[in-house]
Amino acid sequence: MKIKELAILVKGVAEGDDEIDITGLSGIESARLGDITFAVDEAHLTSAEKSDVSCVLTDDMLRKSTKPLIRVKNPKLSFLIIYNKLHTAESKNAFVHATAVVSTSAHVGNNVWIGPGVVVEDGVTIGDHVIIESNSVVKKNSKIGSFSHIFPNVTLYENVKLGKNVILHAGVVIGSDGFGYVKDGGTIYKFPQLGSVIIEDNVEIGANTTVDRGSLSDTVIGAGTKIDNICQIAHNVKVGKNVLIAAQCGISGSTVLGNNVTMGGQAGAVDNITIGDNVIIGAKSAVIGNIEKNSVVWGIPARPIANTKRQMAVLSWLTKNSKTLSKMMKVGST
Amino acid sequence: MKIKELAILVKGVAEGDDEIDITGLSGIESARLGDITFAVDEAHLTSAEKSDVSCVLTDDMLRKSTKPLIRVKNPKLSFLIIYNKLHTAESKNAFVHATAVVSTSAHVGNNVWIGPGVVVEDGVTIGDHVIIESNSVVKKNSKIGSFSHIFPNVTLYENVKLGKNVILHAGVVIGSDGFGYVKDGGTIYKFPQLGSVIIEDNVEIGANTTVDRGSLSDTVIGAGTKIDNICQIAHNVKVGKNVLIAAQCGISGSTVLGNNVTMGGQAGAVDNITIGDNVIIGAKSAVIGNIEKNSVVWGIPARPIANTKRQMAVLSWLTKNSKTLSKMMKVGST
Amino acid sequence: MKIKELAILVKGVAEGDDEIDITGLSGIESARLGDITFAVDEAHLTSAEKSDVSCVLTDDMLRKSTKPLIRVKNPKLSFLIIYNKLHTAESKNAFVHATAVVSTSAHVGNNVWIGPGVVVEDGVTIGDHVIIESNSVVKKNSKIGSFSHIFPNVTLYENVKLGKNVILHAGVVIGSDGFGYVKDGGTIYKFPQLGSVIIEDNVEIGANTTVDRGSLSDTVIGAGTKIDNICQIAHNVKVGKNVLIAAQCGISGSTVLGNNVTMGGQAGAVDNITIGDNVIIGAKSAVIGNIEKNSVVWGIPARPIANTKRQMAVLSWLTKNSKTLSKMMKVGST
Repeated sequence: MKIKELAILVKGVAEGDDEIDITGLSGIESARLGDITFAVDEAHLTSAEKSDVSCVLTDDMLRKSTKPLIRVKNPKLSFLIIYNKLHTAESKNAFVHATAVVSTSAHVGNNVWIGPGVVVEDGVTIGDHVIIESNSVVKKNSKIGSFSHIFPNVTLYENVKLGKNVILHAGVVIGSDGFGYVKDGGTIYKFPQLGSVIIEDNVEIGANTTVDRGSLSDTVIGAGTKIDNICQIAHNVKVGKNVLIAAQCGISGSTVLGNNVTMGGQAGAVDNITIGDNVIIGAKSAVIGNIEKNSVVWGIPARPIANTKRQMAVLSWLTKNSKTLSKMMKVGST
Repeated sequence: MKIKELAILVKGVAEGDDEIDITGLSGIESARLGDITFAVDEAHLTSAEKSDVSCVLTDDMLRKSTKPLIRVKNPKLSFLIIYNKLHTAESKNAFVHATAVVSTSAHVGNNVWIGPGVVVEDGVTIGDHVIIESNSVVKKNSKIGSFSHIFPNVTLYENVKLGKNVILHAGVVIGSDGFGYVKDGGTIYKFPQLGSVIIEDNVEIGANTTVDRGSLSDTVIGAGTKIDNICQIAHNVKVGKNVLIAAQCGISGSTVLGNNVTMGGQAGAVDNITIGDNVIIGAKSAVIGNIEKNSVVWGIPARPIANTKRQMAVLSWLTKNSKTLSKMMKVGST
Repeated sequence: MKIKELAILVKGVAEGDDEIDITGLSGIESARLGDITFAVDEAHLTSAEKSDVSCVLTDDMLRKSTKPLIRVKNPKLSFLIIYNKLHTAESKNAFVHATAVVSTSAHVGNNVWIGPGVVVEDGVTIGDHVIIESNSVVKKNSKIGSFSHIFPNVTLYENVKLGKNVILHAGVVIGSDGFGYVKDGGTIYKFPQLGSVIIEDNVEIGANTTVDRGSLSDTVIGAGTKIDNICQIAHNVKVGKNVLIAAQCGISGSTVLGNNVTMGGQAGAVDNITIGDNVIIGAKSAVIGNIEKNSVVWGIPARPIANTKRQMAVLSWLTKNSKTLSKMMKVGST
């Protein structure tokens, strides 16, 4: 497509030669002639100018360029729109590899692709256009909504429900037993984990993340939520819609996250608390109590970020002035 | 069973109509007519009363109810006892799926169930009533004790020993090489990892947790210990009996945990330290030295929890009064 | 081999009876007659003397012993050299298990061993002497360098490149999509992850670790680097050469680590920062900004370790003296 056609597609304004043909997309580092890229600051734009790239998506804030530009509100989003225009999603035909083991009692939709070594147990329901890649295992009575994509070596335990357009990356485990025990004297008894996991539409879950089944209620991941790699979602947790959870986070049992919550990497939340809508939790935080909606918290334990930063600044200042303080205290105590 | 029969089973006292038939168990959220549930506080009991549940297990502390009750010492434990009475564990017959690859030199006990795609290598010993689910891999000369349950996509490296009634959830890795290297100049050489892993009876290990084999001695997980998802147990670690390790904890090389230790989520312990019996380690703690038995520690680094809380309180107080402090120090330094 | 022969091999000096035959290696705990072990301090040496071990590698710092010794500069390295002499690496012949699914368009080198249930997709290139263990999956167009060893249940996504002599432990995932989204109003769109992963020669990656593919550039792990279990390397990260990353670390998107960096367990680094050569990052640190080369940092946030320790000491001192301080402040504020 020509630059002027792409400008129309992304509702932007072309600047410079808009008759050039664009044949691909790339980051600035690997840009080739014919590619379009995006720049969100002057440094990016300078890099783009030094490359062979043929067109740059930017916003109105950036300067004029020696390269053809398309000015838009959100360059990254426009880049995505062009990507989706130029790349049609890989469409697979109905296929079950000879080495897959699919129960005769499973209900398999149209255009489902089932790779080598996949195991689909009794009573499973698979929607249309689902892809299940090599060596993944779907246990009894689980349901997978249409257009979902299960990467290799994933495990779904019994009776788990995935919505439509769910993406599970390699090594994900959904529906494992929660960490529930009853102590009686010196002995630890396993408590029944009778609930399930409900994963709503458009959820993406990163590699090697685990989501435990509920003990007596269900674990729920709300629609549109994205969870990064190696996270742990414990039993009975309810995660809201459009939540972003970065890598290596952990959410303990029965905790509730509202909608649009963001968790930075390696953060954790204790059990049985409620985190309100739109809360932002800084990386590595330990959330140990309820958090009001719209708060921004950070720290161990997590508090409003300004408090945490102020405490850090005060401690730093006290450390620098500890000699003065020490002298005063000697005087003061005599 | 009737309520009066269940009361006898759990050594409790029925209150209200004890002739009602109980046909299932459930949490308060999903309770149906005919179910029994449990309540550990007044709020739970109120919720139960609003549900269709037919009977509630409680202790002596709670008020009278409109619902039939069974009063017991430990309602959760009694719930578990009734669960075990009503649910007989799934018993599988001897079975090896046609797609499983089981070495002719493996010793397979009675009533062992081996699912699709499972690989059992040479010299492996599998006890009676073991279940190995789809696509799990058991490498050479490993031993699995009777009544153990291996979920899908698990990997046991060579020469690992599991006791009886061990549960390994999906994606668990036992016996991978420890992180052992020798630096010589700029080069990093791999140090031999010649030890093994011994997992004693009644251990349960959560999804995607890893336990490394010992380098020159063995890594040991004591009987009755329960480890949650995505934990890392390093080479040569000795974990005692009846230990509870919550999700995403890490224990570094050669560290020793006593019996009945509890670790909160995302806690870590450095290498070559000893943590005494009955120690409780708060979530997200960093244990960087030996811990006396019976201690309760928290923080980064972990200290007695009262110390950590007091330091936090003092810092908070100093931050609030930093202006006063600042004035004093200006006066003091002149 | 006799002790005197081993002494020549490791360029050491034998002390005591050097005619004894050594038939194996072991740690002090499990030492048998005929074994050689190593001792790096007096306590180790004392333990060795109480065992049946036949020879001890030590350095010049340790005392004389009742056991035959070989004195060397680096006992652990010498132990490794002897181990490599006595153990020849398991050499496998060319083999493809009947249940493996290897695309006819894959290029498979000489003496490649492919285990049961392995899936090798179209266009994959596998070098000579590679081992791919049971149920691992190698997606389209990936490349695996010679002498690499892939343990069971590993997943390589499309177009990933492994160098020579790379070791991937069980459950590793390489090339999963990075955590990249664009928000537009209330909706979260998936951003294309078009880059790849390049893993250079002699890298070892621990069990259940994940390395995401780049979004617009590649994710790179430098030669000789060793990564422990359950780590997360995000999209576009560049890790230098001979880096050591302990278990459960996380490195966020586009961050650059220099050569010879060391990260302690459970440490994390935020996105888009640069960590210089030879930096040492203490366990559980949160690196939230660029770090100068040769620094030693620790803490949340990570600062020069002396600063962090001093702040901790000052807070501890203030806490102990908080009553005195409180009195002074009452006086000061009146």
